[in-house]
Amino acid sequence: MSKFNEKTVKSDVIFEGKVITLQVDEVELPNGKLAKREIVRHPGAVAVIAITPENRMIMVRQFRKPLEKTILEIPAGKLEKGEEPLVCAERELIEETGYRAEEMKFVSSFYTSPGFANEIIHIYEASGLESGDAQPDQDEFVDLVEVTLEQAFEYIQSGDIIDAKTIFAIYYWENTLLKR
Amino acid sequence: MSKFNEKTVKSDVIFEGKVITLQVDEVELPNGKLAKREIVRHPGAVAVIAITPENRMIMVRQFRKPLEKTILEIPAGKLEKGEEPLVCAERELIEETGYRAEEMKFVSSFYTSPGFANEIIHIYEASGLESGDAQPDQDEFVDLVEVTLEQAFEYIQSGDIIDAKTIFAIYYWENTLLKR
Repeated sequence: MSKFNEKTVKSDVIFEGKVITLQVDEVELPNGKLAKREIVRHPGAVAVIAITPENRMIMVRQFRKPLEKTILEIPAGKLEKGEEPLVCAERELIEETGYRAEEMKFVSSFYTSPGFANEIIHIYEASGLESGDAQPDQDEFVDLVEVTLEQAFEYIQSGDIIDAKTIFAIYYWENTLLKR
Repeated sequence: MSKFNEKTVKSDVIFEGKVITLQVDEVELPNGKLAKREIVRHPGAVAVIAITPENRMIMVRQFRKPLEKTILEIPAGKLEKGEEPLVCAERELIEETGYRAEEMKFVSSFYTSPGFANEIIHIYEASGLESGDAQPDQDEFVDLVEVTLEQAFEYIQSGDIIDAKTIFAIYYWENTLLKR
């Protein structure tokens, strides 16, 4: 599937931040014309679907500056340099929620915004949960929230749950986990 | 849900492109410390779930420069300035695939990457489809592909389908549309 390839003619890094890098590439289109592509480079991330023995999904409430809004999400975080996604999933679950998982199973990976970013999220399913103390990063302010499936759908309705990975997780819970 | 708010102390626009704007905000954290937030502003987008009378999902194959890869996605596109998402959904479906929809029903909206971007995607379900000629933008090279549910899951396995909105669409097809 390569007939539409866009050959890079020039690539300029505009900004290198702590989280993302922005570059603008000049590309040659299949018709020979030139075009610009604005590209955000991201280290990738993991997110964790974790259901307690009481059949509640573990979520975190946190303020998201790009949305100017506090929302509920499944535990997630960026990959550190060279970090395996599985290791990152175990780490983020403990840091954000205090829960340790006996088992961490890969579910799916997806790109969030293929039009302008290379961010990929690897989703894991945690089981054999044991609660403990959260260990958030110094600049991270998160509340642990445990929600039933019914509450999860109410939070989707109210807009408190409104991001791709968390909505995916809730449908996965309803359509896969609860049907096992 | 506002106790974690981050007050903006300073906001610098680093880059204004055709598609995205990058800004870096300095914020005051709940503990009084300062931190930087790298934020990508995006106009928002729509995506369309469209199933033909032959029970195939309408998809487009296109090269995505941020991934350096050609992938299969549901028809989608950015909102133009002031454009209603519903109007954008109708427009993008025609432009990318040639299909016109008799009815366009809102399904869901979600943020793709709340950690660093404000991109929101509005998902619509098209019905009463009538085929026609595609009218792609000048710089847009897309192939129309129609896939069965079985093929869709094979494409997820092979990595040809690998973005959040399209995976959402396939699960929605399986778990909602096919159960009506």
